[in-house]
Amino acid sequence: MRQKAASINQALEAAVSVREPAKIHESMRYSLLAGGKRVRPALCLAACELVGGNESMAMPAACAVEMIHTMSLIHDDLPCMDNDDLRRGKPTNHIVFGENVAVLAGDALLAFAFEHIAVSTLNVPPARVVRAIGELAKAIGAEGLVAGQVVDICSEGLSEVDLEKLEFIHVHKTAKLLEGAVVLGAILGGGTDEEVEKLRKYARDIGLLFQVVDDILDVTKSSQELGKTAGKDLVADKVTYPKLLGIEKSREFAQKLNKEAQEQLAGFDHEKAAPLIALANYIAYRQN
Amino acid sequence: MRQKAASINQALEAAVSVREPAKIHESMRYSLLAGGKRVRPALCLAACELVGGNESMAMPAACAVEMIHTMSLIHDDLPCMDNDDLRRGKPTNHIVFGENVAVLAGDALLAFAFEHIAVSTLNVPPARVVRAIGELAKAIGAEGLVAGQVVDICSEGLSEVDLEKLEFIHVHKTAKLLEGAVVLGAILGGGTDEEVEKLRKYARDIGLLFQVVDDILDVTKSSQELGKTAGKDLVADKVTYPKLLGIEKSREFAQKLNKEAQEQLAGFDHEKAAPLIALANYIAYRQN
Repeated sequence: MRQKAASINQALEAAVSVREPAKIHESMRYSLLAGGKRVRPALCLAACELVGGNESMAMPAACAVEMIHTMSLIHDDLPCMDNDDLRRGKPTNHIVFGENVAVLAGDALLAFAFEHIAVSTLNVPPARVVRAIGELAKAIGAEGLVAGQVVDICSEGLSEVDLEKLEFIHVHKTAKLLEGAVVLGAILGGGTDEEVEKLRKYARDIGLLFQVVDDILDVTKSSQELGKTAGKDLVADKVTYPKLLGIEKSREFAQKLNKEAQEQLAGFDHEKAAPLIALANYIAYRQN
Repeated sequence: MRQKAASINQALEAAVSVREPAKIHESMRYSLLAGGKRVRPALCLAACELVGGNESMAMPAACAVEMIHTMSLIHDDLPCMDNDDLRRGKPTNHIVFGENVAVLAGDALLAFAFEHIAVSTLNVPPARVVRAIGELAKAIGAEGLVAGQVVDICSEGLSEVDLEKLEFIHVHKTAKLLEGAVVLGAILGGGTDEEVEKLRKYARDIGLLFQVVDDILDVTKSSQELGKTAGKDLVADKVTYPKLLGIEKSREFAQKLNKEAQEQLAGFDHEKAAPLIALANYIAYRQN
């Protein structure tokens, strides 16, 4: 995992170099290279290798998924959205570069993600690349990340948010892009339709798991431990799993999702599936 | 032109239907279907037909280009950018839907543009689709639209903006996406590399032409005639061609660009080139 993260960081650093206009590239790099855990690109590479592809086939897509993730963080942190000034232990993008540049850095990362897949994916049949691009785009837009964020925004302060709506928000805000990461890897690596669908199910489970664990950490850890503002869900009066189910039931739900996710991997070569099993456990048991 | 615009509007209407979450789709449709002149998609379709393709091969790409154009208008109008509250004679997106939804509607349109090309382009070899996606993405990002907007923002109120910088802004803010529209059509229609490059040169000329004419209209027309706030370049103390060259020299420059653009079309079938010649003249002589 640490080795994968290092090669992903290297690829990201090379993909978005310092160019003119300097300010926008600095802003993009500031958030992209801020040292995230690179879970999404690692999932993308692991899925590609699981179905018989090699790392280089999926590296541009893996970087693209991380660019999209970074874009969504920059835009979500804006004053007109969640108005957050701390992220990964550092001031958020708009605090450093201004709101206008932060909006544009997000837009540029979103566009560049697609450019990078289209231009830098080598030795993969173009039909697979087109399919991968369609999947990634769907994971972002009004049926993906954006859908989750808009329903989240419209639900803040409402008292009648139920489990179904909460799950809609999390599936879209978090699980869709994790699903995209895994499915892109599987498609580019040449997985069969059946393999792609099994991995899609795995990814949906760990995507929801990711958010349930995030909700639990928000109420059980300090800002220092998390590297971002803790307790902000409570302050914003957001509905969370701990709020609806309590901490214990939330932890049980997380375990159930982890188990279901790993069951999807049963039909694959056990050794090759090890990274995806490890990633599911990492998401389930992470401490920040 | 009017007939093309009608079929483009129909395709856009069908592409972005009303779905859940309703608010984000309404916001996307509000700006996308606000009745622009559809110059960019018309250019895309005409370029495709000029090199021997048919309209349906380029229609998803033509719609995608208009989605990108709409996205850039929504984000450029935001309070943290140009802070404009009137666009095409109607209140801007963030005035109607709020700033947060406007940011997200732009993001969703940006993502959906790529989804639409990848999923809905039929009967075109996938290698062409991948190449087209790479071109479109490049036209948007930190070497395209975003580069123009960021340099524009950073130049406001500065006294030392010269012709070179002004041209950088316009080439990036306006010409890059017109170039994208034309080049996408030419690639998807199966144009040779030589044809694609000639059409690229044509598009760059009319792209700059578009902006020079825009600058001239801003100082010579009323808000009512334009359907948007007139004289705003002066108010914002923006550098424009009329300001640097005077109105007469700006008009001469526009004529030179139109002539150069049309010279690129000389080697093509004259009858098939007629729509692109007409579009260049339309851009040169439009009144709003």
